[in-house]
Amino acid sequence: MSDQYEVQPHTKVVRGPNRASYDRTQIHGIIDDALICHVGTVVNGRPAMIPTAHWRVGERIYIHGASKNRILAAIADGAEACLCITHLDGLVMARSAFHHSANYRSVIIYGHGTVVADDADKMEHSRLFTEKLEPGRWDHIRQPNKQELKATVFLGFDLDQVSAKVRAGDPVDDEEDYDLDVWAGVLPCHTVWGAPIDDGRLKPGIQRKAR
Amino acid sequence: MSDQYEVQPHTKVVRGPNRASYDRTQIHGIIDDALICHVGTVVNGRPAMIPTAHWRVGERIYIHGASKNRILAAIADGAEACLCITHLDGLVMARSAFHHSANYRSVIIYGHGTVVADDADKMEHSRLFTEKLEPGRWDHIRQPNKQELKATVFLGFDLDQVSAKVRAGDPVDDEEDYDLDVWAGVLPCHTVWGAPIDDGRLKPGIQRKAR
Repeated sequence: MSDQYEVQPHTKVVRGPNRASYDRTQIHGIIDDALICHVGTVVNGRPAMIPTAHWRVGERIYIHGASKNRILAAIADGAEACLCITHLDGLVMARSAFHHSANYRSVIIYGHGTVVADDADKMEHSRLFTEKLEPGRWDHIRQPNKQELKATVFLGFDLDQVSAKVRAGDPVDDEEDYDLDVWAGVLPCHTVWGAPIDDGRLKPGIQRKAR
Repeated sequence: MSDQYEVQPHTKVVRGPNRASYDRTQIHGIIDDALICHVGTVVNGRPAMIPTAHWRVGERIYIHGASKNRILAAIADGAEACLCITHLDGLVMARSAFHHSANYRSVIIYGHGTVVADDADKMEHSRLFTEKLEPGRWDHIRQPNKQELKATVFLGFDLDQVSAKVRAGDPVDDEEDYDLDVWAGVLPCHTVWGAPIDDGRLKPGIQRKAR
């Protein structure tokens, strides 16, 4: 398997091509570092979108949700989807308004979804998703019953129409602007986890397992 | 003006209606708290999406980018857009796999974009965007020239087809699962800003102004 995704007419990054990446390992990392993606499709000729959680297994990315969700149902029914994963890593403060930018890592995936039909496979994907949220959790929780599996649609998308855009580092100003008396640089941002909050109805004596 | 956005067939939250909000002040807050949104549209019958920065002025949300970007150009040309803003506030860890969820605030906006055509208006929106990034910055930076304004398309969307979904608080498990010996609660997450990083070519003697 090539270490690069194939550049296709539909996945070729046209704007800002110097920020383009088709690197398989880098793209897997961008996907795996994120908990949520945005999923777009076309419903009755109109754009539609939802934010949702995702997980990856090899060369497939998966999402799930209520079977009756109109966007997931449209994709299950064959509508093409576009998934986008974005990490904002910082604001790039330039000396000129025009060159203000962001440091980011984003991936765009196009594809048709494959419905995970078999209950055993749905159960396995429930496990994979739960384990992404907190490794080791699956063995302790109450696993899905038949009714819950039925109410949930799982959709997988092959990672073959994929591209990434990545920007990092300093602002890039026009040469003549470097002499301006303006602070320039990066305001980095990142996501952090706060202290776990116990459920108000937590059973007495139950402690959170350290990860 | 009503304090609620009108619920329309296209904006009515069907799945999880108890999480729906059409509250104008709350929706403005969700929009303003975010630096980036995801913008979807339909190009040649196919879904397309970009992450981009946004800002709000009253009952309009604005985005900008390269005039030649195919998605922005399609919207400028009349294609309907769907904008989504999402804050992930935490992971909701339930006692059952099925009731795992996220705490989040998201807004979906449908609309056709209006191109900001006039150079003075484009300049004013450059100012508004820059001031969102860092209040007080506009007066110190080199402002856009004619060529830069020409290379940038600004699109405004009326906030009228708008809905939000908001989830907060504890997991909600099936009654019989509360007796399980499983830790349940919320893993809160939020975005934080790191220490500013000076540009490698920062002019000697320039300090970042404290905000």
